Amino acid sequence: MRILVTNDDGVFAPGLLALARAMRSLGEVWVIAPDHNWSASGHVKTLHRPLRVREVELADGTTAYSSDGAPSDCVALGLMGLLPGEVDLVVSGINPNSNLGHDVTYSGTVTAAMEAAISGKPAIAFSLESPEDLSEPIDFSAAERVAEQVAAEIIRHDLPPGFLANVNIPCLPLEQIKGIKITRQGLRIYHDELVRRLDPRGVPYYWIGGGVPTGVPEEGTDIGAVNSGYVSITPLKLDLTAHDQIDLLKGWKWQDITP
Amino acid sequence: MRILVTNDDGVFAPGLLALARAMRSLGEVWVIAPDHNWSASGHVKTLHRPLRVREVELADGTTAYSSDGAPSDCVALGLMGLLPGEVDLVVSGINPNSNLGHDVTYSGTVTAAMEAAISGKPAIAFSLESPEDLSEPIDFSAAERVAEQVAAEIIRHDLPPGFLANVNIPCLPLEQIKGIKITRQGLRIYHDELVRRLDPRGVPYYWIGGGVPTGVPEEGTDIGAVNSGYVSITPLKLDLTAHDQIDLLKGWKWQDITP
Repeated sequence: MRILVTNDDGVFAPGLLALARAMRSLGEVWVIAPDHNWSASGHVKTLHRPLRVREVELADGTTAYSSDGAPSDCVALGLMGLLPGEVDLVVSGINPNSNLGHDVTYSGTVTAAMEAAISGKPAIAFSLESPEDLSEPIDFSAAERVAEQVAAEIIRHDLPPGFLANVNIPCLPLEQIKGIKITRQGLRIYHDELVRRLDPRGVPYYWIGGGVPTGVPEEGTDIGAVNSGYVSITPLKLDLTAHDQIDLLKGWKWQDITP
Repeated sequence: MRILVTNDDGVFAPGLLALARAMRSLGEVWVIAPDHNWSASGHVKTLHRPLRVREVELADGTTAYSSDGAPSDCVALGLMGLLPGEVDLVVSGINPNSNLGHDVTYSGTVTAAMEAAISGKPAIAFSLESPEDLSEPIDFSAAERVAEQVAAEIIRHDLPPGFLANVNIPCLPLEQIKGIKITRQGLRIYHDELVRRLDPRGVPYYWIGGGVPTGVPEEGTDIGAVNSGYVSITPLKLDLTAHDQIDLLKGWKWQDITP
């Protein structure tokens, strides 16, 4: 089992180190991650400029590659030939913030996993709910154990093509995590506000501010599971078609539109 | 009807001008678009830096706002208070390249529309298949007519909440377009290849190259419709859950994983 590890916080992020450690008991680990933070930067394919790659050493001595591309570029680099062999699984994270509900299309952590799924490789995105107290360094030890065990269970199975799992872990000590729930994507509620200020030269600038996103903690959803102390595993797919609207739209008057 | 027009190619792109013109018969048009090209840059929310906005004048005298944010940031700016009133519809494009199949999560054109749908506004992304001959300027005149008529038909209806349509237009003169098809997302096939070169100092760099994406032109899909000369309208949603995998995953051995 050859496992490519990436993230969206940068190659030296502690969450990446925790994930690389977690994967080591499951197979050979390769790390390719961005050289800087790409949070909320979405699904990127860098075509208009070249990408640089350099070898770096993580805090525990692991050799890793760092790239100036986005998380999804790092996955593309790994799957298209930067690594000396075939990758069997791509994992992304551990993101120090949950990726729930509508977060998935913004999330560098999740879109890195999407990139793998588009290339036909199974992929898992791991995110840890952020703690209430942000003054202390984040403790990834429980999330590291969960990531190892979740990935182990997933790779025991014959996976559907393009298998893509979005895993969110509550910010709790391991013994307080209640278990695992298989969930659907819930409804995220953003509290963004536009802040208008004047710069030192009197020119206006705008900053997207406001409160942290909340969500509807409905039973059966990712948000509901994490809110109740469970690890949430949401299987995702790349077909965004609103299949239930196709018949509705077919009933509209399109025939008059073109010659 | 107040219509916010954006794109991912930049505020001075001819496709944006065509779309703004197309919308003018349907309502009041406001333009907020990026100051540079963001193609294949995905769904971005710029939180870590301020956004600048400046007033510019398009080639036909239209007043527009240009921002250094991504297409989705432009939509957020418009919906969060940069504009003097409520927006009723967000349109994005006309992109001078189709956005079919798996392109949707990469596409700045489509993710700008997604941003609107997340905020509860109906949104339509418009893309024009690129011509075979790229030496001539792209002719948006047929696509402009199609965009106007498609948007007119969509706004005639009570739209489902979060309504999001991905419209792809074949590169044909208006009289050769065969009609409109309501489609599902097809299977895109990428032909990316990693090109490794040495820079003038002998240091390697990598470039994602390879052929243009193709796709499986299956009946009923966006790719099939455009390939046969039809305008494709795919209703999209923001729930990426693979609902058909939930029961499968529930059958796996998760109970042994956490205490």
